[in-house]
Amino acid sequence: MAKICLLSLSLVLLFSLSFAQQQLKGQCQIQKINALQPQYKIQSEGGVTESYDYNDDQFQCAGAAFLRHTIYRRSLLLPSYTSSPLLAYAVKGSGILGIMISGCPETFESSQESQQESHGQGQRFRDRHQKIGNFRQGDIIAVPAGAAHWIYNSGNEELVLVVLQDTSNNVNQLDDIPRRFFLAGNPRSGQEQEQQQPWQPEKQYSRFDNVFKGFAVQVLAEAFNVDLETAKKLQGENDQRGHMVNIEQGLQVISPPFTGEEQQYGEQNRRANGLEETICTARVRQNIDNPSRADIYNPRAGRFTTANSLTLPILSFLQLSAARGVLHRKAIMSPHWYMNCHTIVYATKGNARMQIVDNRGQAVFDDTIQEGQVVVVPHNFAVVKQAGDQGFEWVEFNTNENAMINTISGRTSSFRGLPVDVIVNAYQVSRKVAEQLKFNRQETLIFSGGESSGQPRVSSV
Amino acid sequence: MAKICLLSLSLVLLFSLSFAQQQLKGQCQIQKINALQPQYKIQSEGGVTESYDYNDDQFQCAGAAFLRHTIYRRSLLLPSYTSSPLLAYAVKGSGILGIMISGCPETFESSQESQQESHGQGQRFRDRHQKIGNFRQGDIIAVPAGAAHWIYNSGNEELVLVVLQDTSNNVNQLDDIPRRFFLAGNPRSGQEQEQQQPWQPEKQYSRFDNVFKGFAVQVLAEAFNVDLETAKKLQGENDQRGHMVNIEQGLQVISPPFTGEEQQYGEQNRRANGLEETICTARVRQNIDNPSRADIYNPRAGRFTTANSLTLPILSFLQLSAARGVLHRKAIMSPHWYMNCHTIVYATKGNARMQIVDNRGQAVFDDTIQEGQVVVVPHNFAVVKQAGDQGFEWVEFNTNENAMINTISGRTSSFRGLPVDVIVNAYQVSRKVAEQLKFNRQETLIFSGGESSGQPRVSSV
Amino acid sequence: MAKICLLSLSLVLLFSLSFAQQQLKGQCQIQKINALQPQYKIQSEGGVTESYDYNDDQFQCAGAAFLRHTIYRRSLLLPSYTSSPLLAYAVKGSGILGIMISGCPETFESSQESQQESHGQGQRFRDRHQKIGNFRQGDIIAVPAGAAHWIYNSGNEELVLVVLQDTSNNVNQLDDIPRRFFLAGNPRSGQEQEQQQPWQPEKQYSRFDNVFKGFAVQVLAEAFNVDLETAKKLQGENDQRGHMVNIEQGLQVISPPFTGEEQQYGEQNRRANGLEETICTARVRQNIDNPSRADIYNPRAGRFTTANSLTLPILSFLQLSAARGVLHRKAIMSPHWYMNCHTIVYATKGNARMQIVDNRGQAVFDDTIQEGQVVVVPHNFAVVKQAGDQGFEWVEFNTNENAMINTISGRTSSFRGLPVDVIVNAYQVSRKVAEQLKFNRQETLIFSGGESSGQPRVSSV
Repeated sequence: MAKICLLSLSLVLLFSLSFAQQQLKGQCQIQKINALQPQYKIQSEGGVTESYDYNDDQFQCAGAAFLRHTIYRRSLLLPSYTSSPLLAYAVKGSGILGIMISGCPETFESSQESQQESHGQGQRFRDRHQKIGNFRQGDIIAVPAGAAHWIYNSGNEELVLVVLQDTSNNVNQLDDIPRRFFLAGNPRSGQEQEQQQPWQPEKQYSRFDNVFKGFAVQVLAEAFNVDLETAKKLQGENDQRGHMVNIEQGLQVISPPFTGEEQQYGEQNRRANGLEETICTARVRQNIDNPSRADIYNPRAGRFTTANSLTLPILSFLQLSAARGVLHRKAIMSPHWYMNCHTIVYATKGNARMQIVDNRGQAVFDDTIQEGQVVVVPHNFAVVKQAGDQGFEWVEFNTNENAMINTISGRTSSFRGLPVDVIVNAYQVSRKVAEQLKFNRQETLIFSGGESSGQPRVSSV
Repeated sequence: MAKICLLSLSLVLLFSLSFAQQQLKGQCQIQKINALQPQYKIQSEGGVTESYDYNDDQFQCAGAAFLRHTIYRRSLLLPSYTSSPLLAYAVKGSGILGIMISGCPETFESSQESQQESHGQGQRFRDRHQKIGNFRQGDIIAVPAGAAHWIYNSGNEELVLVVLQDTSNNVNQLDDIPRRFFLAGNPRSGQEQEQQQPWQPEKQYSRFDNVFKGFAVQVLAEAFNVDLETAKKLQGENDQRGHMVNIEQGLQVISPPFTGEEQQYGEQNRRANGLEETICTARVRQNIDNPSRADIYNPRAGRFTTANSLTLPILSFLQLSAARGVLHRKAIMSPHWYMNCHTIVYATKGNARMQIVDNRGQAVFDDTIQEGQVVVVPHNFAVVKQAGDQGFEWVEFNTNENAMINTISGRTSSFRGLPVDVIVNAYQVSRKVAEQLKFNRQETLIFSGGESSGQPRVSSV
Repeated sequence: MAKICLLSLSLVLLFSLSFAQQQLKGQCQIQKINALQPQYKIQSEGGVTESYDYNDDQFQCAGAAFLRHTIYRRSLLLPSYTSSPLLAYAVKGSGILGIMISGCPETFESSQESQQESHGQGQRFRDRHQKIGNFRQGDIIAVPAGAAHWIYNSGNEELVLVVLQDTSNNVNQLDDIPRRFFLAGNPRSGQEQEQQQPWQPEKQYSRFDNVFKGFAVQVLAEAFNVDLETAKKLQGENDQRGHMVNIEQGLQVISPPFTGEEQQYGEQNRRANGLEETICTARVRQNIDNPSRADIYNPRAGRFTTANSLTLPILSFLQLSAARGVLHRKAIMSPHWYMNCHTIVYATKGNARMQIVDNRGQAVFDDTIQEGQVVVVPHNFAVVKQAGDQGFEWVEFNTNENAMINTISGRTSSFRGLPVDVIVNAYQVSRKVAEQLKFNRQETLIFSGGESSGQPRVSSV
């Protein structure tokens, strides 16, 4: 008996120790990364939100949460805000984003008189509201922490958005739980379905609801200067539509025609676009899918397009950036590591073999990533991708406003920086082989793969 | 027996897990917030310091400690420094603040000859010391982390200061325990009284004492180039006065006449007031109680005055700001959330009903806050205040140099940013009711309450 | 039996509680600091790396790891990178540092034709590589986080480098484990020897290896466009030389003659030296051992020389600085505290008595520090050093780009900022003694000790 007790004691001690150890030492001691599918699903009238398990080691290491909204045609994601900045990518469809910031002027105004008289005072009512913006497939959209926003599907198909919520961002002064505060509706009325696991201790804390529910109706009535019945409407108690709602007749807002062109900005430094100063007019979207805007382009291999604080200044405040990659059949993205961020990769099409290697020289991921899956590449871990037979397309979110990539092979790689004699001695190869290692790969980041790259080439400056 | 053991095992496992969970996931999973009274009290000859329980969930979430000094007439809080920045508000009385920074010039000098010859070398001695500053009731005073400072009550009544110590500030490279390092006296000789609880595990670590005690007397004698007896005086071993001491005849310092006026500064950007450059002459005080300086003023409802890095540039370095609010009888401060900070509210007069709502739509606080009590409003949590019959006055400390408030109702609210049709569909109300929700409340932040606001009003731009 | 179980239960509970407590409250509740010797030793063909126990309380508090490389003559530390910035000091010898950053131009090029034809295409090969830099004893060298680098001993004696790895730096997005990612060799083949303790749970995580080992050979062959056999060489599986390798004939690189002079830079602000912009040409070394460059100099007592972001702008990005101190026999460094950083002290010669005092007035360190030992002085803790009979020399690393020192005695001390009457009342001394305390020590930071400083002196402005 005593033995059992002692055993239990030692087990517990070991357990406590190992657990404590893990916390004490941080959360990036990753043994194995898996390509993730969404784990939870919340169904509502106007669409569905799927979330990836933010308790998974890779998200704990990255300090981020990830989710996918599918907003049906003519449906609205109700106004809400989060304590961490959001960066989203429109995988499919098009929509309208409204960010509401207290104190910003209502610069979109109607000059037509409205049909109905308001308030019985004989005045005709014209609406006016803050700037709103259109976006479409291939756009990155950025929402600052704490800024309330709504999204409407204004297109003719489903709108699919993948969203990174950077909970470890230093503007988030709460803990690392992904929280969303709704300003309308009855979000919990949506049907939550866990797709895989039966019990999740954190689940209750990641729940979201309408904050008006926590205020007394009488106080709301006074605050809005309306009657109690109207104030009660704010709390949405009997609303069964969930967090996305259908608008049968379509949403009527004041909006300029959408050309898909981005506004052009003059030279701006960080100060000139200060969050405190001009957040009311900040540009929050950038297209990264249009091939004509590629930053790195290789007709045989693919392309790579980035959105960072230099192309989209508000990303300075979000401390996030993003990139869109396209690899043709069997093409390779150079082995590389990010100097200053984690990368969250979401596969939008096709598949690729990825290998992610840690400081112990072990592949924590050596698998295929498929459309709809997510893989986190931790800061400084080395990674290589090779597209499958159908090619590979992805969007990646980086936890730094200017992600710095360090390629290991290719024309701009750190290998090119090495004197040949260092290569000779480090790898115990002949001078000739050292020159091959240094100069054979002439492309920069996206390499053509397969038979097309079989013969060694010579450098020609 | 084995069952008991297994039970104990599972209990422990559960316990460890839940405890670990709590830590792993951060410290803002608040179920309930209570209005706090001071918990500890340290009595000394020259006054008393009361501290609020920094182990309370709300302070753990905010990463801050809070205390209240009452310094008696003609008494001195001995020189000390802390590893976190301090922001204080003078609730009552007036005083002198001296901040001593190594390397700053001694710019306050006496031109009168002193009565006594010093050092027997025939020279007459004139004192000189670093700049010191007067302050009075209604002033915010700012002290950078690691800067030694002393405070003297130069008025004719008690001096009451409430102090926020921002332990989670990123300039604090120690842990989140509020530490104070004294440079004089025998602070522990003060009589410590716990006001509520019998045993506090952290207590020993929050204790403070004179750092000279840890040095060898011989070393001190050499360092100051004085004899051993004098060096021993630095350690204050036999001093029974505690951390505040009475100065019978009053403190004699060199100080310009105090008008209460603040120095006027020209246009300054953040660099121009660099801590490293001009901390010696930085302005560290601002009055936020004078009604004539209100930022938001509503004669029927009250006022709101802020001190932030734009009005008091040193707050850039402290990453803190503050505000003073006054609500008349039954007046309401608009429901709002802070986009970028926690808020620590200290009630200076009267009382108010406050409601604080989390992301789950639950009121974690729905109670009255009374004079002398503290409540933390966590980052992004929605909050509303309504003054009681005697009105309500408070000071609030924000953990960001430029706290950004997002009101939910009122003329500059995020609600005003919403298109009417979004309101119609989000809240399932008629267009007329939507217009009421959007436009009925014409005031900005401070709303008059009670009967005066009964009728809906029409917007008139 | 039940008693044993309950005992085990309570023990475990207590243990869990106390352990958890420690974590919850941070890691600077230091009761005692010891001067540390290296704990681990990794022997390789070309040298040895000794690491200090980063699990020790003082390193856990500082959030840093510390190690010492001894690189033999004509040996190379293989290319590697770390997730935290590195700051190193050359204790002995001289060498070459190559930092390889992807995208930087290869600006060091040979104009001589090489002896051998390359690739059989009739072209003569000329090497070109990124800028490399010479350094020698007394130099600080800075390596940004995530930047691959190699070091070669180009001198005629052993090269000894001490290295601070600032794992708690906010550019490190991984946890606080000191990780090193090698790009060559078979680092684990080095013989690891624990010098003191039998078992270390963290050891496995601090191990480092060649990241190429985690990639499939086929992928490497494609990525480098070389054959499989060459690709296999990158993985270094059969390399028995360890992480430093001997180069019999010496390393051949393109390098300008080394004068020991540092480049002179014009006026630069932080932006102008932006990591993203000009890291390719950034200066990464500064000599702090040359007496002619001392910042503080006292011919009788010693000297003190700093490297910070004003003298070496890249330190802005590392958020680190360093200083070199020399104390003559019995000389004293003024009692002081650092306002904004931890300090990691490495003794390079002689010994000193150090006292480090915490906020409870207790000496957590009161001992001798010897050549080769390390002591961490936590942020804000008060410290004094007095050299032994042979004098004392040290290098210190500070976890802030502009470490701010606050001396307690001396001509620029915070004591000088105090009005005499505050001293009179705080320490209960006569006015005459107060003046002695304030004015007797005329030196600034480095005080001559022993008999030479016996008589009180008078201030003379």
